[in-house]
Amino acid sequence: MQPMPRGPVRDADEVRAEVVEATENLMIERGVRAVRLRDVIARSGVSNGQLYGVFASLDEAIMTVNAKTLRRLEKWLVRDAAQAQPVERLVAFARCYLAFAREETPLWRALFEYAPQEEGTMAADLRTDQARLFEYPAAPLAELYPDLGADGVLLRARTLFSAVHGVVTVSLESRYAGVSVERLEEELTGLVRAAIAGYLR
Amino acid sequence: MQPMPRGPVRDADEVRAEVVEATENLMIERGVRAVRLRDVIARSGVSNGQLYGVFASLDEAIMTVNAKTLRRLEKWLVRDAAQAQPVERLVAFARCYLAFAREETPLWRALFEYAPQEEGTMAADLRTDQARLFEYPAAPLAELYPDLGADGVLLRARTLFSAVHGVVTVSLESRYAGVSVERLEEELTGLVRAAIAGYLR
Repeated sequence: MQPMPRGPVRDADEVRAEVVEATENLMIERGVRAVRLRDVIARSGVSNGQLYGVFASLDEAIMTVNAKTLRRLEKWLVRDAAQAQPVERLVAFARCYLAFAREETPLWRALFEYAPQEEGTMAADLRTDQARLFEYPAAPLAELYPDLGADGVLLRARTLFSAVHGVVTVSLESRYAGVSVERLEEELTGLVRAAIAGYLR
Repeated sequence: MQPMPRGPVRDADEVRAEVVEATENLMIERGVRAVRLRDVIARSGVSNGQLYGVFASLDEAIMTVNAKTLRRLEKWLVRDAAQAQPVERLVAFARCYLAFAREETPLWRALFEYAPQEEGTMAADLRTDQARLFEYPAAPLAELYPDLGADGVLLRARTLFSAVHGVVTVSLESRYAGVSVERLEEELTGLVRAAIAGYLR
C-alpha cells in the first residue's frame, strides 16, 4: 500500500510554515520578482487548495516573508541600540544596516522591490512596520537636536537613513568598483558622522 | 493601388530612430521591466528584420534610451555647474537630481532597474557614462577638500551622491508620506549642507 500523501494530514499552521519557507527560499534563490505560485506549490509540497486555505494569494506569502525580514532587521537594530552615546548609536545603526543588507541581500532587496498588487490590511501593516524602524534612529536624533520637535526629528531620521540606504544600495549594485568593504564602511560611517556634526552647527 | 507599406522604404537611421522612440515611450508608459519586443515592433511599425538590422536585441534599444536619458541629465548638471561657489554648486546638483527624477521618473528609474542580459561594449560604455556623472560633484569637492586626493574626492562624490540618490529614491516611493516637495527639497539640501560642513571639521 502506498503511504498516504503528506498534504492532507497537515494542519493549517504546518501548511503556512511550509509555504512561507518555500517562498522565502525561492526569493533568496531567484529574487522576489521571479517567484511564481506554481514553484511555491511544487517546493512546499502543499496542494493548491491547502495554500489558498492559509493565504489569499502569493502576495500574502511574500508579504509574510517581508514581515519576517523586517523583524530580523529590527532585532539587529535593537542589539545596536544598546550604545549609550547618541552619535555612536546612529553610526552603529548605519553599520548594522549595511551588514544586514550584505548578509541578507535578496531578502533585503525584496523589501523594496516588491509592491503588493492589491492594497489591503497586510500591505498597510507592512508599511507601518517599515516606518516603525525609523524610530530607532529618531531616538538618538531627538537627544542630539532637542529643539527639532517630534515631526522634525522623524523627518531627519528618514532623510539620514534614506541617505544610508542610498549608499548601501549603490554599493551592493557594485558601483563602488574596487572599493573594499572596510573602506565602504568608513565612507558610510564618515557620511553619518559628517551629517550629524554639520547639522549641529 | 494600396500605398506601399511604410516599412521597407525606411533607411537604417530612420528605423533606428523609430525603434528608440517606441522603446522610450513604452518605458515611460509601463516601466522598463514591462517592455516587450513584440510591443516595440507593433508601436514602431518596423518589421522584425528591420529591427534586427539596427539592434542586436531589445536590450540594445533600451540601453540606447538609457544613454539618451543620461545625456539629458548631464545637460541639467552642466547648466547648474555654472554656480561659482563650490557648496552652492553641490547643493544645485542635489536639487537638480531631485528635479530630474521627479520630472522623468520612469526613465530615471530605468537607469537603475535595468540590468543588461549580456555584458558587451554597450553595457560597459553605459556604465562609463554613468560613472562620469560623478565628476560633476567631484570638482567642487576637490575645491573644498584639497587634501583628499583624486581617489578620495571621487569616493566622497560617490558617497555623497549615493546618499542624495537614496533620499530621492525613498521620496519617489512616497515613503515621505505627507511631506511637500518644498519640505523634501529642504531636507535634501539640508543633508548636503550638513555633510559638507561636517566633513570640513
